[in-house]
Amino acid sequence: MSAGKLETSGGRAGLLILDMVNCFDFPGADDLEPRALRAALTTDRLRQQFHEREWPVIYVNDNFGEWHSEPSRLIARALENDNPVTRLLQPSDQDYFIIKPQFSGFYSTNLPVLLPRLGVRRLVLTGVATDICVLFTAADAHMREYTLWVPQDAVAAEDDKRGKWALQIMAQSLGAQTAATSELSVDEWLASLED
Amino acid sequence: MSAGKLETSGGRAGLLILDMVNCFDFPGADDLEPRALRAALTTDRLRQQFHEREWPVIYVNDNFGEWHSEPSRLIARALENDNPVTRLLQPSDQDYFIIKPQFSGFYSTNLPVLLPRLGVRRLVLTGVATDICVLFTAADAHMREYTLWVPQDAVAAEDDKRGKWALQIMAQSLGAQTAATSELSVDEWLASLED
Amino acid sequence: MSAGKLETSGGRAGLLILDMVNCFDFPGADDLEPRALRAALTTDRLRQQFHEREWPVIYVNDNFGEWHSEPSRLIARALENDNPVTRLLQPSDQDYFIIKPQFSGFYSTNLPVLLPRLGVRRLVLTGVATDICVLFTAADAHMREYTLWVPQDAVAAEDDKRGKWALQIMAQSLGAQTAATSELSVDEWLASLED
Amino acid sequence: MSAGKLETSGGRAGLLILDMVNCFDFPGADDLEPRALRAALTTDRLRQQFHEREWPVIYVNDNFGEWHSEPSRLIARALENDNPVTRLLQPSDQDYFIIKPQFSGFYSTNLPVLLPRLGVRRLVLTGVATDICVLFTAADAHMREYTLWVPQDAVAAEDDKRGKWALQIMAQSLGAQTAATSELSVDEWLASLED
Repeated sequence: MSAGKLETSGGRAGLLILDMVNCFDFPGADDLEPRALRAALTTDRLRQQFHEREWPVIYVNDNFGEWHSEPSRLIARALENDNPVTRLLQPSDQDYFIIKPQFSGFYSTNLPVLLPRLGVRRLVLTGVATDICVLFTAADAHMREYTLWVPQDAVAAEDDKRGKWALQIMAQSLGAQTAATSELSVDEWLASLED
Repeated sequence: MSAGKLETSGGRAGLLILDMVNCFDFPGADDLEPRALRAALTTDRLRQQFHEREWPVIYVNDNFGEWHSEPSRLIARALENDNPVTRLLQPSDQDYFIIKPQFSGFYSTNLPVLLPRLGVRRLVLTGVATDICVLFTAADAHMREYTLWVPQDAVAAEDDKRGKWALQIMAQSLGAQTAATSELSVDEWLASLED
Repeated sequence: MSAGKLETSGGRAGLLILDMVNCFDFPGADDLEPRALRAALTTDRLRQQFHEREWPVIYVNDNFGEWHSEPSRLIARALENDNPVTRLLQPSDQDYFIIKPQFSGFYSTNLPVLLPRLGVRRLVLTGVATDICVLFTAADAHMREYTLWVPQDAVAAEDDKRGKWALQIMAQSLGAQTAATSELSVDEWLASLED
Repeated sequence: MSAGKLETSGGRAGLLILDMVNCFDFPGADDLEPRALRAALTTDRLRQQFHEREWPVIYVNDNFGEWHSEPSRLIARALENDNPVTRLLQPSDQDYFIIKPQFSGFYSTNLPVLLPRLGVRRLVLTGVATDICVLFTAADAHMREYTLWVPQDAVAAEDDKRGKWALQIMAQSLGAQTAATSELSVDEWLASLED
């Protein structure tokens, strides 16, 4: 399917899922993985809602230094071991998959071309880690004038304290909504925004 | 293999192969394909030389509006029909493959992160089309201070005249070397450059 | 005046004036300057029309390697000698002035933030040189999905032949309108565009 | 002076001074200004050391939505009222001055072209605010593989707590050195880095 024909629409939003296709094999992953699983359960529910609305779901995923890889191989490799996070959030055929080589999903990736084609100006950010890739993707999105919701129950960090700080910085410095999905629905979020 | 450990080296160069994984199914492709095949024969020889030197070969290829694709699928699709260009230049496992969504290989792609990791400041540009993706990738490379060789027998355009004009603009405006590989070898090119 | 409050409007266009604040003291400037003066006369008429419509006029000008400069000093320096081009096109207080360090007006400049704030998706490109800064700014504008008019009588190159080639490449590869202002008015151009 | 001739040198570093040419007239400025003054005293000492070494000092400063401004006018405007921060840190003629339209000093500014010309790969970040422009400039610098020192006594935030969090995120997520200048000298910092 080509993204070329879609039109900008005020209401429409995009769901970004950061680094959840992940081998969790780096230092600190033991702390991150159970927290990522809780975030994955929330993200999966959001993803279903976006699928129902036919709004775009975009995986924005690190290549983890593996420059000869591609989405299907990154997913296969993440699923080689028991990996409930990636298993739960396996991309479906209609989802987009952007490979990023650095922390921010906007830096040296196809994302800045894809998003205007998808006609979204509002992004829901989910995934890991709150104080690294989520934070710096949020900053780049804000600088490109996207409106942000980073549901605090759909993101995770190795260290809960640093995750909380990052959320407060996103709320204060980037004007991001950070309410949990238990407190705010997609429709309530959209209704809360001025046009 | 990770690109993270490679070191910058003055002599080392990178070979960029533009849009040669290609279905040649667009208007004008009938004019382009035979010319692309001549360029592919030259590019294949250059590629062998780069492989022998263990210098990086980087496919920089359009997604042709197919946002749900990835390298292996782009290649498989290009090989569905008789396609001597893509068949000759099928990427090998050690080659890099960067997907670009627009004309320039540097715009919204992983390339600006990969090239510094590969330690190259000198690029040989090959592929199609001389007056579009080759020209605008060359411009972006020049603005990022890469030294360029665009061998005139390793690039092709639908229209020979526009291809020639683009080569003259690359030579004049971007300081690119544009000699044919029959007139200049890789070693001669490198020797001609001041350090 | 802040650019923050302006709204996107389909009809509105922006006028870009490239490198016309210029000392014309480089090799080849003797060939370029009389051609630039002819382009300046056309550009000045366009500028008046844009002022009357209260549409943005944006100087996008090289720093010519002078990193300690700023707009007022670049203008003062260009006016130190007899310089009919810069004298004719002196920016007025309402015009914007973007300093660019490389060929393209979009590369490492404030322009990608300013244009969305000005609410323009359509650009008229004028100035020098057709086969360098105009061509590569046009390419970057096209990749960012701006609609382009490069009036052939509002741009100039050192070499008429290379200027003509660059115009043909802009027409063919970038879909740019290149009619002269004697053949096409601003209103006719806008009317010719699909929305 | 042109930046075109300088060479890369491992030891050389650059000093970035963020948003200290500032009217302090926004909400929260009353909290920020006294903290900024303490940071300015440290930054001024660093600046003297950089001047003595003939290493580049680069002001990276917001246009504060004032798109018709330029460095000299931004400085004059900041000095209209009693403003000890800007008065202390007035740029000297040899210092560079980059205007940024968004939080990060790298986003849509001339900085990505200037830094390679200055031959620096190591940056000392100073200024305001720790949890906004300093943090997001640091992230962009890290993604472009610059080595960072953000001296905690040379930066300031409106809210001390958020400033401290941002410093911890820079230390943890970006590998930044954050020791105070009372604990670490420029030479000690450089000696601590692997080449």
